[in-house]
Amino acid sequence: MTVPIKPLSPSDLAAYCKQLAHSARSAAQVLSTARGGLKDRWLHEVATLLAARQEDLLAANQRDLETALRLGLADAALERLRLTPQRLEAAATGLHEVAALPDPIGRVRDSNVRPNGLQVLKVGVPLGVIFFIYESRPNVTLDLRGGKEAAHSNAVLCAILRNCLAKVGLPEDAVQLVDTADRAAVGHLLKLDTFIDLVIPRGGEELIRRVAEEARMPVLKHYKGNCHVYVDRSADPAMAERIVVNAKCQRPGVCNAAESLLVHRDVAAVLLPRLCTALQQRGVELRGCGRTRELVPGVLPATAEDFAAEYLDLIMSVAVVDDLEAAIAHINQYGSRHSDAIITNEFAAAQRFTAAVDSAAVFVNASTRFNDGYEFGLGAEIGISTDKCHARGPCGLVELTSYKYIVLGDGQVRE
Amino acid sequence: MTVPIKPLSPSDLAAYCKQLAHSARSAAQVLSTARGGLKDRWLHEVATLLAARQEDLLAANQRDLETALRLGLADAALERLRLTPQRLEAAATGLHEVAALPDPIGRVRDSNVRPNGLQVLKVGVPLGVIFFIYESRPNVTLDLRGGKEAAHSNAVLCAILRNCLAKVGLPEDAVQLVDTADRAAVGHLLKLDTFIDLVIPRGGEELIRRVAEEARMPVLKHYKGNCHVYVDRSADPAMAERIVVNAKCQRPGVCNAAESLLVHRDVAAVLLPRLCTALQQRGVELRGCGRTRELVPGVLPATAEDFAAEYLDLIMSVAVVDDLEAAIAHINQYGSRHSDAIITNEFAAAQRFTAAVDSAAVFVNASTRFNDGYEFGLGAEIGISTDKCHARGPCGLVELTSYKYIVLGDGQVRE
Repeated sequence: MTVPIKPLSPSDLAAYCKQLAHSARSAAQVLSTARGGLKDRWLHEVATLLAARQEDLLAANQRDLETALRLGLADAALERLRLTPQRLEAAATGLHEVAALPDPIGRVRDSNVRPNGLQVLKVGVPLGVIFFIYESRPNVTLDLRGGKEAAHSNAVLCAILRNCLAKVGLPEDAVQLVDTADRAAVGHLLKLDTFIDLVIPRGGEELIRRVAEEARMPVLKHYKGNCHVYVDRSADPAMAERIVVNAKCQRPGVCNAAESLLVHRDVAAVLLPRLCTALQQRGVELRGCGRTRELVPGVLPATAEDFAAEYLDLIMSVAVVDDLEAAIAHINQYGSRHSDAIITNEFAAAQRFTAAVDSAAVFVNASTRFNDGYEFGLGAEIGISTDKCHARGPCGLVELTSYKYIVLGDGQVRE
Repeated sequence: MTVPIKPLSPSDLAAYCKQLAHSARSAAQVLSTARGGLKDRWLHEVATLLAARQEDLLAANQRDLETALRLGLADAALERLRLTPQRLEAAATGLHEVAALPDPIGRVRDSNVRPNGLQVLKVGVPLGVIFFIYESRPNVTLDLRGGKEAAHSNAVLCAILRNCLAKVGLPEDAVQLVDTADRAAVGHLLKLDTFIDLVIPRGGEELIRRVAEEARMPVLKHYKGNCHVYVDRSADPAMAERIVVNAKCQRPGVCNAAESLLVHRDVAAVLLPRLCTALQQRGVELRGCGRTRELVPGVLPATAEDFAAEYLDLIMSVAVVDDLEAAIAHINQYGSRHSDAIITNEFAAAQRFTAAVDSAAVFVNASTRFNDGYEFGLGAEIGISTDKCHARGPCGLVELTSYKYIVLGDGQVRE
């Protein structure tokens, strides 16, 4: 397996990108009418080959890790880059699980027989060609495309996916790697809305903003997750502590981890010291408003930037709010419309919070960490959207499909 | 009512656009939790006021028409611009009909109780702020924004919408007119994805392409409608004639009118002269492939541009195709993924055509003219989308909504 990096002239690069996109469109056309059983067989074959070629994969990954170490990548980035037998096994299990999901393609989602006898069917179809851009470093945009840090690993993975497509009789070009180190390739691809139906960027905010600016096709994305836990005056103290600690500490580097704690002023004097101590004991640095700092020692002052920040780390902003409405206003102002929770035992407060907080997922008495395709029962997850168009929240198999109308008549014309 | 055109300095213009978008966002926040009954009352009030202020509206429209005549607008554009008592009455009826539709907001679209007891609800919510750009001239992009040709009419209409909002106690800024003649305003607004959730351009292809290029938020659109009718070898001749004539001639200037006729070669000798004569008798200019021209006198030669064209006029391209697969390939190559029909009596052909033609709406034995929100039973239509993300095909009330996840727990944390 050679390193998949080709130096190309500008015009060759444009032609290469167009060819990639065109091949993808042709493969998508074949896939659009392929039986579900064939697609399931492909997923099972890939799972099998991941195990069979484990040694090659780990060796290729080792080369990427060595390069990354030499380039001085941060520990978190190295950790994301690393493949292990356990991770490959988990990936294989995931593939089997996706294959076991019901096929959304061809399913009639809605139907309507019109007074003139026309049968109007709304039928699930594939979304088409998806351009997936990801980077192995979550916070710093070094580069666009499939992460050159993972070049060797990606080359082997892509070969496995394509081999298995050929094996079950599906077009190999249904999966293609953009194998050039030239970041201009991304700009070319983002303009090809004739061939590409959707782009999904995964990575740091800077990467995602660039994609959203340049893309002519829809973008499925979230910029960041500044998630809140609001502890209402009627909150059960033990539940509040358990959920705040879980939301902040269970996996602080991911988008659905909490970044900000809000506490109702009526219970702040009692609850805030308890919650802050629990967080501090787990190594969380707290940055709070004036009222918080009066109640809890060792809290640094918070700025407006703190309340808007996605730390992705053991840091949390803290504010005392006057009431439920102030909490809602704070979240809608500073939040990122991703995942926000209220801890309460008041029915009306739960109703108002879930209606008025304008986020993709709103939680009552549960950790924000549950905003996840598997946890929501979607059976898979390719990302979380904070946009309101197409899919919002976690995106599983169905969210990666579209629909068409099929209209069956017996000669109807329009009057 | 003064003409709503303000000359602004570049920095004032940017501030003005930001203010508009910010006010819209604030109004949307209030509307998001407003009861459905209030929104329905607003629609009824607007319908009433349209009738009560009919004279003002027609007078304002008359001023626009006079300016348009002086500027030499084409007849079709003048026709689109014109308000009549009948059109106002039809609009009022439409408003009452929309008010009568079930409110999609707050409806649980899907739900799932997880093994850990979490109740996951997928609930309909408003899409948020929509930036609607339309032009009164369908084919030529003179300008962006709400069509300055309709400035007087739009000012009165907008005042009616806002008065009625205030009357029922909803925020007036839920409807705002971008009242500046400066086309740079559009560029500013298209960047404000913090405040604007969706942009809907209605007008010529050039306008829509500019919006798709510049917008940072999702765009609900179709560039054009190059719609096909394919007459299969088993087609009923009378039905084929009726549908082809209807699809082409009933209203040639709209996006779901047919622009291209394909006929299976086995029946071309018999059917094509009949179909072409029927079209020619209705004044349709035909542009055909070589085989068509051999069979039918008076057909001009068609170029590749003809097969890709959206004429929006009494012109039609015609081709003889070898078989069903050739028809599908032709449509997927030249079509615009909008509306395409097959006339057939073969089950397998209908199945294959509806599965393989990659268009928003695919018809069997019915006219492409039925691709319309009202005709599909959506109860309203704001436009037709040929994108595969968010909404595809006609967009009614539900297609202009989004959803959020509401997750109800009793203290769950993630393991």
